Amino acid sequence: MKDFHVVGIGNAMVDILAEASDGFLADNGVGKGIMQLIDMDRAIELYAAIGPAREISGGSAANTIAGIAQLGGRTAYIGKVKDDQLGAIFAHDLRAQGAVYETHLAPKAHADETGRCIVLVTPDGERSMNTYLGVTEHLTPADIDEDQIAGAEWIYLEGYRFDGPESHEAFAKAIAAAKQSGGRVALTLSDPFCVERHRDAFRKMIAEDIDLLFANRAEICSMYQTEDYEAALAKGAADMEILACTDGENGAHILTGEARWHAPAEAVEIVDATGAGDLFAGAFLWAITHGFTLETAGRMGCVAASEVISHIGARPEADLRAMFRERGLL
Amino acid sequence: MKDFHVVGIGNAMVDILAEASDGFLADNGVGKGIMQLIDMDRAIELYAAIGPAREISGGSAANTIAGIAQLGGRTAYIGKVKDDQLGAIFAHDLRAQGAVYETHLAPKAHADETGRCIVLVTPDGERSMNTYLGVTEHLTPADIDEDQIAGAEWIYLEGYRFDGPESHEAFAKAIAAAKQSGGRVALTLSDPFCVERHRDAFRKMIAEDIDLLFANRAEICSMYQTEDYEAALAKGAADMEILACTDGENGAHILTGEARWHAPAEAVEIVDATGAGDLFAGAFLWAITHGFTLETAGRMGCVAASEVISHIGARPEADLRAMFRERGLL
Repeated sequence: MKDFHVVGIGNAMVDILAEASDGFLADNGVGKGIMQLIDMDRAIELYAAIGPAREISGGSAANTIAGIAQLGGRTAYIGKVKDDQLGAIFAHDLRAQGAVYETHLAPKAHADETGRCIVLVTPDGERSMNTYLGVTEHLTPADIDEDQIAGAEWIYLEGYRFDGPESHEAFAKAIAAAKQSGGRVALTLSDPFCVERHRDAFRKMIAEDIDLLFANRAEICSMYQTEDYEAALAKGAADMEILACTDGENGAHILTGEARWHAPAEAVEIVDATGAGDLFAGAFLWAITHGFTLETAGRMGCVAASEVISHIGARPEADLRAMFRERGLL
Repeated sequence: MKDFHVVGIGNAMVDILAEASDGFLADNGVGKGIMQLIDMDRAIELYAAIGPAREISGGSAANTIAGIAQLGGRTAYIGKVKDDQLGAIFAHDLRAQGAVYETHLAPKAHADETGRCIVLVTPDGERSMNTYLGVTEHLTPADIDEDQIAGAEWIYLEGYRFDGPESHEAFAKAIAAAKQSGGRVALTLSDPFCVERHRDAFRKMIAEDIDLLFANRAEICSMYQTEDYEAALAKGAADMEILACTDGENGAHILTGEARWHAPAEAVEIVDATGAGDLFAGAFLWAITHGFTLETAGRMGCVAASEVISHIGARPEADLRAMFRERGLL
């Protein structure tokens, strides 16, 4: 038995969640429904403009790891925070959920701070993300513990983590360590604009190393530079062993070889869409590392996504196992 | 017209909210339903033991001021934070709600940090508070701006703020400035154990200066050292011009001279009781500074309290004015 079902690598950050109108987004140059990278000056300016907020630990892969941990999976997370109050909050929340988190802290003297994401939630529940990466941008190969990676059945790579000076080298080191120990590699494309920035790197990684790809409709279409969702799915299925693609209220499609399943979305009022894809991936990974079929994994993914969009914040609040049991999946 | 309807003075802190079982409270020495003062070591120990949390600005009087500001009242707040990330969060959230907040920041070199309250919410919605005061304990007379106080119709004093080395002197300065400018003085007793610690000081202040007292059943009984709620109400009504006393699901009693009104509690599922008394006081103060009767003020207080206990966090989320309109109060 390996030490970990999943080890995730991503951008460690605390979400700053506030409600905002569509007019506010337009007036303040915030792109709706996407993730925009911002610097500290912009973060300060935007933060001063938004309404009262609350802080909840986030980070895409960290949300996924938190979901797996809540389900009882053995997990670890690699991502950089600073020795500051937001860093302490991030570390606490992940450990309190049961994940192993031993990243090297950036020292107090570091010029940057712990990363944060100003998430503006519009009345339709859509989230528009404004990310100050801070120290999480500076994850380097030295932060990748090969022994920890070797102890993982799966490693889970966050597409957003491709931004930053030594990100690609850090991922390469992690992938090599995983492959050498018989581990498998999952990647999430994170965001269509993230795909724009890193399409070539993603394609190379997919061609060589990726066993399982998570994407949503916009991302997979951006990856294959087509507006034809079915064509993009077909190309994806040909490029890797497993493709798990979410499509909002249309649920998710799981493809492997010639086989294909559709998992319906749960009917739920969207309060805050933040974390839907992250929790889909979390439940999916938990399922496939616990002997469930890909079809069931897809259905569990949709249930977990429905939980996290029914409240503010991207970490699960309700008991996901209980939700699976209620639906006869467990 | 004065600059402010209400200027509040209290302990500035960020709430760290987590769910906990009654067993967890017992195992970790947390007194249920009350506020306990803790030092930094205990804060670190307790924080490490609790589950995933979220951070939302709190502080009793600050919650009250946020409520008045959300209703459109002109407000200012006096309370000390440090120049750190939690201090920035507290300041942002109050200003974003529309309150004036210009307290002197404790510098980065200060040994203490911005205050925080670890709020453990049990399944019954009751909150058990563990407060690390940090720099907010060190509010001194120098932090009281007499011109600001002179610009207030009412000043609102938080009972919790009686803890700390120069608190009484700071309150005395504020009261003197208010009285000289024709302002009036409201006090909240905050907590029955707070009353235990400061009964004599509260009594002296009530006898000499307080025009309006906010309390709940346990606090007013503790103040007058009786288990007879009606007897405590009668004594309170004799001691000050207006007594506004909340009694949980039994609503609130408003007493002035020989007159007395009862405001019924709203039927609502309690998710998190944090801030119920604070928002009662906020709506009450907004009402009496906007020409409403004491009876209506009591009813508005109960409506506002019901809003804040229906969700996690002690600041209002729904539109309180809309809630008043729906009930024909506005």
